[in-house]
This record gives sequence, structure tokens and C-alpha cells, in this order.
Amino acid sequence: MPEHTAASRLQLSGLCFLLQILIIILFAVFARYSPESSPSLCSQQLNCSSRNKDSGFQHPRYRDVHLQALLGFGLLVAFLGRYGPGSVAISILILAFAIQWAVLIQGFLYFFLNGKIYVGAQSVVSADFCTAAILISTGAVLGRVNPVQMLLLTLLGVTLFTLNEYILLSLMGVSDSGGSLTVHTFGAYFGLMVSRILHQPHMDKRKEQQDTGHQPDFFAVVGTIYLWIFWPSFTSATTVRDNAEPWAVLNTYFSLAASTLATFVLLPVLQEEGTLRMVQIQDATLAGAAVMGMAGEMLVTPFGALIAGFLAGLIPPLGFRFLMPVLCSRLKTQDTCGVHNVHGLPGILGALLGTLLTALATADAYGGRLELVFPLVARGSRTATDQALSQLCALPVTLLLATLGGSLTG
Amino acid sequence: MPEHTAASRLQLSGLCFLLQILIIILFAVFARYSPESSPSLCSQQLNCSSRNKDSGFQHPRYRDVHLQALLGFGLLVAFLGRYGPGSVAISILILAFAIQWAVLIQGFLYFFLNGKIYVGAQSVVSADFCTAAILISTGAVLGRVNPVQMLLLTLLGVTLFTLNEYILLSLMGVSDSGGSLTVHTFGAYFGLMVSRILHQPHMDKRKEQQDTGHQPDFFAVVGTIYLWIFWPSFTSATTVRDNAEPWAVLNTYFSLAASTLATFVLLPVLQEEGTLRMVQIQDATLAGAAVMGMAGEMLVTPFGALIAGFLAGLIPPLGFRFLMPVLCSRLKTQDTCGVHNVHGLPGILGALLGTLLTALATADAYGGRLELVFPLVARGSRTATDQALSQLCALPVTLLLATLGGSLTG
Amino acid sequence: MPEHTAASRLQLSGLCFLLQILIIILFAVFARYSPESSPSLCSQQLNCSSRNKDSGFQHPRYRDVHLQALLGFGLLVAFLGRYGPGSVAISILILAFAIQWAVLIQGFLYFFLNGKIYVGAQSVVSADFCTAAILISTGAVLGRVNPVQMLLLTLLGVTLFTLNEYILLSLMGVSDSGGSLTVHTFGAYFGLMVSRILHQPHMDKRKEQQDTGHQPDFFAVVGTIYLWIFWPSFTSATTVRDNAEPWAVLNTYFSLAASTLATFVLLPVLQEEGTLRMVQIQDATLAGAAVMGMAGEMLVTPFGALIAGFLAGLIPPLGFRFLMPVLCSRLKTQDTCGVHNVHGLPGILGALLGTLLTALATADAYGGRLELVFPLVARGSRTATDQALSQLCALPVTLLLATLGGSLTG
Repeated sequence: MPEHTAASRLQLSGLCFLLQILIIILFAVFARYSPESSPSLCSQQLNCSSRNKDSGFQHPRYRDVHLQALLGFGLLVAFLGRYGPGSVAISILILAFAIQWAVLIQGFLYFFLNGKIYVGAQSVVSADFCTAAILISTGAVLGRVNPVQMLLLTLLGVTLFTLNEYILLSLMGVSDSGGSLTVHTFGAYFGLMVSRILHQPHMDKRKEQQDTGHQPDFFAVVGTIYLWIFWPSFTSATTVRDNAEPWAVLNTYFSLAASTLATFVLLPVLQEEGTLRMVQIQDATLAGAAVMGMAGEMLVTPFGALIAGFLAGLIPPLGFRFLMPVLCSRLKTQDTCGVHNVHGLPGILGALLGTLLTALATADAYGGRLELVFPLVARGSRTATDQALSQLCALPVTLLLATLGGSLTG
Repeated sequence: MPEHTAASRLQLSGLCFLLQILIIILFAVFARYSPESSPSLCSQQLNCSSRNKDSGFQHPRYRDVHLQALLGFGLLVAFLGRYGPGSVAISILILAFAIQWAVLIQGFLYFFLNGKIYVGAQSVVSADFCTAAILISTGAVLGRVNPVQMLLLTLLGVTLFTLNEYILLSLMGVSDSGGSLTVHTFGAYFGLMVSRILHQPHMDKRKEQQDTGHQPDFFAVVGTIYLWIFWPSFTSATTVRDNAEPWAVLNTYFSLAASTLATFVLLPVLQEEGTLRMVQIQDATLAGAAVMGMAGEMLVTPFGALIAGFLAGLIPPLGFRFLMPVLCSRLKTQDTCGVHNVHGLPGILGALLGTLLTALATADAYGGRLELVFPLVARGSRTATDQALSQLCALPVTLLLATLGGSLTG
Repeated sequence: MPEHTAASRLQLSGLCFLLQILIIILFAVFARYSPESSPSLCSQQLNCSSRNKDSGFQHPRYRDVHLQALLGFGLLVAFLGRYGPGSVAISILILAFAIQWAVLIQGFLYFFLNGKIYVGAQSVVSADFCTAAILISTGAVLGRVNPVQMLLLTLLGVTLFTLNEYILLSLMGVSDSGGSLTVHTFGAYFGLMVSRILHQPHMDKRKEQQDTGHQPDFFAVVGTIYLWIFWPSFTSATTVRDNAEPWAVLNTYFSLAASTLATFVLLPVLQEEGTLRMVQIQDATLAGAAVMGMAGEMLVTPFGALIAGFLAGLIPPLGFRFLMPVLCSRLKTQDTCGVHNVHGLPGILGALLGTLLTALATADAYGGRLELVFPLVARGSRTATDQALSQLCALPVTLLLATLGGSLTG
């Protein structure tokens, strides 16, 4: 950022101005606050996904909005741990723009009625999930793209994310409350494809420089604590009803604890110098959270969460050691913040785990919860195997959309 | 701070001791916990403002106290971004003293009954709003006043703030839930007047030194994230009922997002060196929050919040560039943390916007919310125009009290 | 940490692996999620302490889990203020392990039924209180113990903590909702005994080095703010019912404010150089919180909280000045983070205060709250004096267990 020319700065200024004016006009034409007097509006007339239908318009949820909207910031702080405060200004710009844009785009798909978008607490929560995915994507290209390109990437990324989410949640009926697929996997592979297209071999050294300061380690401490504190409640933010919530929270806690221990198992063996850097612990935390995205509300026993978290915690250290060099040399894909190891692979693992659990789901084990987690299965319109199949199909659909979209954007 | 003489240190120690003993005695004589068995106490017997009456004694609110009491800390961290950790010890001293003193003073005005002050969750929330205003004031004089003077300034400031709040909310029936006038405008102009009286031209250089370090930028990152996370819920902390809350939260979010983009529009044009510093983004965030203080619960459409936030976001960059030198040279007023640009002007803008919206308020647009936002209008004892007039009058009253009080204190 | 040999690194890796596998197996055999359909399970069939019985299974509490689980992190950040980020990786390892282990051990004592442990939101909250005590203990030995020893210390410490808590809360019927005794006093003296046994005189210099950097001061700022924000809600996390909560929150706020002022009274007198370091303010904050652990829900008047907080705030400065050198030279006990001054003595003061208040408790002053705070007294099975006696006895029991256990572990 520091070396902008006068022209590029004016370009950025003009683009921001144009986009903001555009958004204001679109909001003026389309957006209205949702009438609180009719909380059942969504389920009756609007084309709502199961996520929006069940959790958004319930009264007690309104007060939690401000907590949910932190999701993106957790990732932001997490990236600071790896990349330093240099690019934080750009990240906040992207965040401010992505939230507004996502409210619009998602509004057209989910909350559109009589030519108006009805904006409510749920819109902001959904928009924030979208913003989180975009921030993961930017993590892969951070430092190699100028702010104007970043804004355009955000513009397209938000649109594709919403499309993918719509296909998965509304059309295919997939359960993915914590966003293993929609947020982590989509965000990671979208960013990686963009990164691949924009590959510039001579920029490698800059990253190394930024990575070694003392400051970043501080951000990693703050980021790790932030993730531990708030992530369990994010994962459960959109679970179907209040009753199902505690399981998702507890599963995520156990997963975080186990993945942290896994890092301590693996790192002393893999590393020569023997110093554990906070960034690596933070990566384990993120991976442990990503793996619980889909399976968090499905796991019936706590030890399942421990095992999943332990496996997820093994991915980042192995990935950075063995996979990253291959990615970098063979596929010519740079990955500034290691989003592939931290979000991509654990997200896929989480999706596979969710599929497995869905296939094994029986009315006995879930009891009254079955209807909450898999409404279609409970109502008899699908068997558990069908549901598992559609969960499984969601994975290639997401990967396809992400890579195609990424190539296009790049 | 580091160069205290022995005498001034003993002075500080003695003053702290005296004030604490005084407060303990006053608490022992007057303060009691409010009896929870009679939650309707306030509305029947006590002289409560509309803010206290409606939100304080409802049961579900009690649990939110710990979140509301963060307001002052947000500002504290925000100032650190501009001024560095050097004066944080003094700020925390002021905070600890102001909360105790504000509970007492506000108790005498609002919760006084049969010779006792009834302290409840609402007292701490009100005291925290007051503390936030005092911290804004100290932001204008930070680094040029010794701790003993700071404590005396706090003593007087809390008293005047409470007086102003009492006149506005209770006597004039003004709606100012987020404190555009009572917190931001009063705090800024009170601090500026004190700063003017204490003007010492030879101290300028110190500020410049502190402003350039790398450490402050870090605080600005943390401060900005903190404000984004918690401010929307502050603004709505005292909105009249739960139903009205989501609008205030959402309006504040949109305002924050738009003011951040506005900063990115303006700064590349105004600045030569082209580097966006985090402190400037933080200023935009604060301004976007200040403008929503009064209007947050009144805006009926989301694009209004976007426009207001966008305008507010333009103020700090323009102010620092064009207004600050004028202030400094002509009016001989130093403004260490730029509170005029960040709190003062956006607060006034917010108050004007609130007035405009009040004048336009109709029963149609608000529906059932009219009674919640403007209880006097809904009950028919005032027309919307009368309400707008009293909202408008509140602005000069606040300015007058702030400047008079500031001169006196100085 | 940086100078591990290859052997010790492999040892750590292996131990982590073994412990994690052990925990997974134990979870697989014993742990199940508690059936939400029968919220009254605990009070009827399980051997629940009064703490668990009343607060854990109530529905509204579930959503607060994620906030309660922050307790340990507050202490973690607090220690960073004193010791720097060097040992944070180890602290997080301990935290991740202690939470899992505490869920198991506490599950065997409190939630065991038909050969299964029923894990719920309450388990995680209890486990987090335990983790906080262990982190206080490690604060006393930080920097002088290798990670493998730390893990073994955690293993034993969690077991002893649970035993002590079980004796106090379940067998003796002591009210200690905020953990003055169980968390602060036990944690401090357990750590000090371990520290005494492991005394190595030639390691002193390292601590001094770490203590003087600029970085720690930053952590102290963040830590202090964190404690102010979240501690009041921790203290009240396990208070008996929602009605009693506000008093504990308000008492803790007043105590924090008064202890901060107390530090400003004493430090300018005691210190020659006249600079107030943030770490000292943070110590005062911690002491003010520790003293309110037991008495928080018992105090009937706000000025009591002010006096208690003021006295607690005087302890750390006096302790560091006069007591620490004695401890170090006479008793050959090193105390890296000053846990004796910050947690030990204020915890004892809090316990004595709680005893006094219990002895004075009358049905008149408490009204309907009597049953909530002292259920045994309210039901007539104990007089207030008997309750006070058992509160008093809890202190030597805790000290005995902590010192014996510490010696054994050492």
C-alpha cells in the first residue's frame, strides 16, 4: 500500500465514491426495514432458506446480532497474526463494502417481496457470514493485489458466495449451519484460484519479510483468544432452534481444545528449531473451528468432537510443511496466509464428517432434535441416506463454483 | 506524567484518598440497592427520565449491564490510538472515580426517594454514559493537564453533564437515546472550552512526538474493531423497548460501514503521502457512531443511515485538514485528540438530523413504534413539530452549558 | 521455552499425544451429552452441588456459556502483562488440556449417573473455573518449569481443585459463588507450594529481564480493560438465580472502582520514581475482583463493596513492597507473577468478609434473597452462625489441601 501513485489513489477514491453512491441508490429503491409486526412473513411468502426461516425472525435472537457480527473481525485479527498490520486498512475497507453489498445481494435472493428487500437482524448476520468468506479469500492474495482489484474481487466474490449458498441451502436442502462448506471451503478455494491466476513469482520475498516481526506474534495472541471466546457462539449462531444450540457450542469447544493439543503433538516433531510460534496455535484453533462448521450440530457424543478436532489440528502443521511447497512450485499458487491449510482442507474434512454423520443419523439418537437439524428427514420427505447424498454433492458443487468463479475473477 | 515531583505525587495520593473517603461516606448515608421486588417503583414514585423509566427496571435488561458498561472503554482504547499508552493510567483513574461520582450525582436527580438513592443496574449504565462524556472531554486536554487537575475537571464535569442530561431528557422531553447531544456534543465542547482556557502554546511539540510511533497504530486497530463490535449495541442500549432495538442496531451498522467508505473516498484526495493510517479509519468509525446517537432509533429506512454515515465520515478528514489549524491559531484552542472533528461536529450533525426526522415523523411511518420513540407525541400531548422544536432547542442548551461549564472549570 | 533439546521436545509431543488419546478414550466410555428433555435430572438423581443444581440447567443460561468460558483468558492476558508473550503458548496448552480434564474429573463427582457422565453447558463453566485456578497456580512458577512438568502439575492440580470444591460446596454447604476460596486462594497457595519445592535461586535474573520491556505494558492495558469488562459477569455467573445476579455484578463494579483508586492513593507514596505502571493498576483490579468472589452476592449495601474494594486495592502495592522480599529470602519461595499478593491475600480477605457477612445475615436484610444465597439457612436446617462457622472452616480446609497438594506435586 505505501507506494501508491497519485493516479491509483484517485482511482481508489473514485471507485469507493461510485460504489457507495450505487449502494445508497439501490438501498433507497429496494431496501426497507422488515415489519416487526409480522414475524411469520418469511416462512409464508418469501423464498427463505431453512437457516433464515427458523432463526432470523425469532424475537430473542435480535439481541444477539451485535455478537454475531463479529465473525469477520475474528478472521481479520487472525490474518493480522500472519501478515501484520500493514494491510489492515484495506481489510476494513473490504469489510465495510462487503457488508453493504451482501445485504443487497442476499436480500434479492432471500428477502425479496413486492419489489422490496426487507432488511432485518438476520440480513446483517447473513451478510457477515458472507463477509467472513470474502476475508478468507483475500487472505490468499493479501499483499499482491492493489486496493482497486480487491474491491472488484469483493464485488464478484459476494455475488458468487450468495449464489453458492442459495444453491446449497435453499435448493439442495443441505444443513451447514456453521459454514464448513459455504464459508471456509468456498472462501479458501475462491481465493486460491484468484491467487493462481494472479501468480507473480518475484513477489515471494515480501511475505517472508513481514512474517518474521515481533508485532505479528502479538496479534496472534489476541487473535487466538478472540477466536476461543467468540467462535463457539458463531458456529451455533444459525443453528435451527435454541434447543440445538448447546451441542454446537460444546462440540466446538471440545474441537478447539483437541486441535490445540494436536498442534503440540506434531510441531515439536516437525520443527527443528523447537520454538512454538503463536501463529501456529492460532492456525490450529481456526482449523478446529472450521471442521465443526457443518458437523457441530450433528455430533451426538463429545468424544466425536475431540477426535474431529484432533484430526483437524494435525492438518495445518502438516500442510505448511509438506503441501505448501508443492502448491507453490507445481501449481504456481501462492497462498499468503495459508488459507488452504487452515480453512480449505479442514472445511472439506468437516463436510465429509457431516456427510458421514448424516448417513448415520437415526431418529433414536437424535430424538426430538432430528426435526431441528434435518427438517426434511424428520418430515419424511427424505431418508437419511438421501440427505447424506445431498450433503456430499454440496462439496463438489462448492468446489466447482469456487474454482470457476475464482478463475473468472482473476 | 513521568516527571512528577514528590509534592505533586503526594497531592494526588491525598486527593484520591479524600475523594474515595467522601464517596464511601456519601454512599453509606444515601445509597441502597433498589428493592427488586418492586420493579415499578421508578415509574410511580421517582422522578425518572423516559430513558430510565422504560429500560432500566425490566428484568431481561439486567444481564446486559456488563456489556453496556464497556462504552467508556471503547473511547479509552480509541484515544490510545491517537495518543499512546502514556496517559492510560490517568484515564483509568478518571474512569474509576467518574463512575462512582456519577452514580451518586445521578442518583440524587433520578433515583432519590425518602432520603435514599436506589442503586440498580440502570444507575451503572447511566453513570457509564456520563463517564464516556468525561473521557471525551479529557481527550481534548490530554497531556497538558496534571492528574490532580484532571480529577477536579472530572468532579465538575460529571455534575454539569448530569445537569444537562436532566434538563434535556426529563424537563424538555428530548429523545436522545444514543447520546448524540448529551454524550458527544457536550463532552466535546466542554473539553474544548477547558482546553482553551488552559492554552499553553509551547506544549505543541509533545503531541507531535507521541503521534508518530508504531505502537499507537496498533491501538487504533484494536480500537476500531472494538467500536465496530460493541458500539451498535451501545446506541441501542437505552432505546425504549426491545422492539425498537433492531432498527437502532442496524442503522448504526450501516452508518459505520458508510462512514468508513467515506474516509477512503476523501483521504486519498486530501493526503499527499497516500498512506492511510488506521487512526483515520477509527475517527471515521467514531464519527459514524456519533451521528447515529439521536437519529438511530428514528430512521425508518436503511439508506438514510447510509447517507448520514457517509456525511459523518467526511467530517473528520476535512476537519483535521482545514478546521484544526484555524482552531489552533485563531481560537487558541488545542485539541489533543481531535475531539471536535470526531465527536463535536458529528454530534451536532446527528442532532440536526434527529430534529429533521422528528419534524417529519408521522404515525403512518412509525406505526406502533411512535409511542416507543416519541411517547409524548404518541400520547397527543405534543405535535411532531413541537417535539422537533424541543429537540432543536436542546442543541443550544447543550452548547451553552458545555461552554459555560468549561470556562468555569478551566 | 526456546532452548528445548530434541529429547525434551519429543517428550512433550509424546505426553500430549498420550494424554489426548487417554482423554478421548475416557470421553468415549463415559461422557454423553445431557438429555435436554429432562432439565430436572440434576436436582433429582445426580449428586449436584448447590451451584450446579440451580444455575446450570435453566434454559436462559445456555446462551451465556460462551461468555463465561472467558474467565481463564482474562487471567491469561493478565499474566502476559507481567511476564510477556514468551510463555503464552504453554499457557494455552495448559488451558486446552485443563478444560478437557476438568470436564472429566468434575463429571465423575457431580454429573455421574448410571455409569455415564452427562456433559452440559454447566460442565464447561465449572471446568473453566477450575482452569482459572490452575492458571493462577502456574502464574507462580511460570518460567521456571518445563512444559512437561507443567502438564503434570495441571493433571494433579485439576484433581485436587475438584476435590476441594466438592468438599466445600457439596459436603460443607459453603456459599462461594465467585470463587474467593475455591479459585483464588486455592490457586495461589497451590502454586506457591509447588514454587517453594522447586526453588532454584539462580534463576532470578530471567524474570527481571522479562519484566522491563515495553510490550508487557501493552498487555497490561488490554488485560485491565478485559477484566473490567468481563469480570463482573463472571463473579455472578454462578449466583443462585437471576434475581440475585445484579447485586453481585454491581458489588464487583464498585469494588473494582474503589480498588483502582486505592492503588492511586498508595503507589505515589510508596514509589520513589513516581511512574504508575499499568501492571500495578491491573493488580489492583484483580485484587478488587478476588475479594468480591464470596461476598459479592452477600453484600446488602453498595458502600460495603466500596470499602472492601478499597482495602483489597491496598494489598498488592503493600505486598510487593514489604512482603515479597520476605517471602523470597526467608521462605525461599519465588512468585513469578505475584499471585500471593494479587490472588492469595485478597482471596483470604474475601473469605473472612464473607464469613462476617454470613454471621450478620438476617432474614430482614435479605428478604426473599435469603433462600437464594443461603438455602440451608433459609430452610431452617442451619442458623446463620452455623453457616458462618462452616464458611470460616472452609478457609483452613482450602489452605491445607492447597499446601499439602502443592508439596506433593512439587
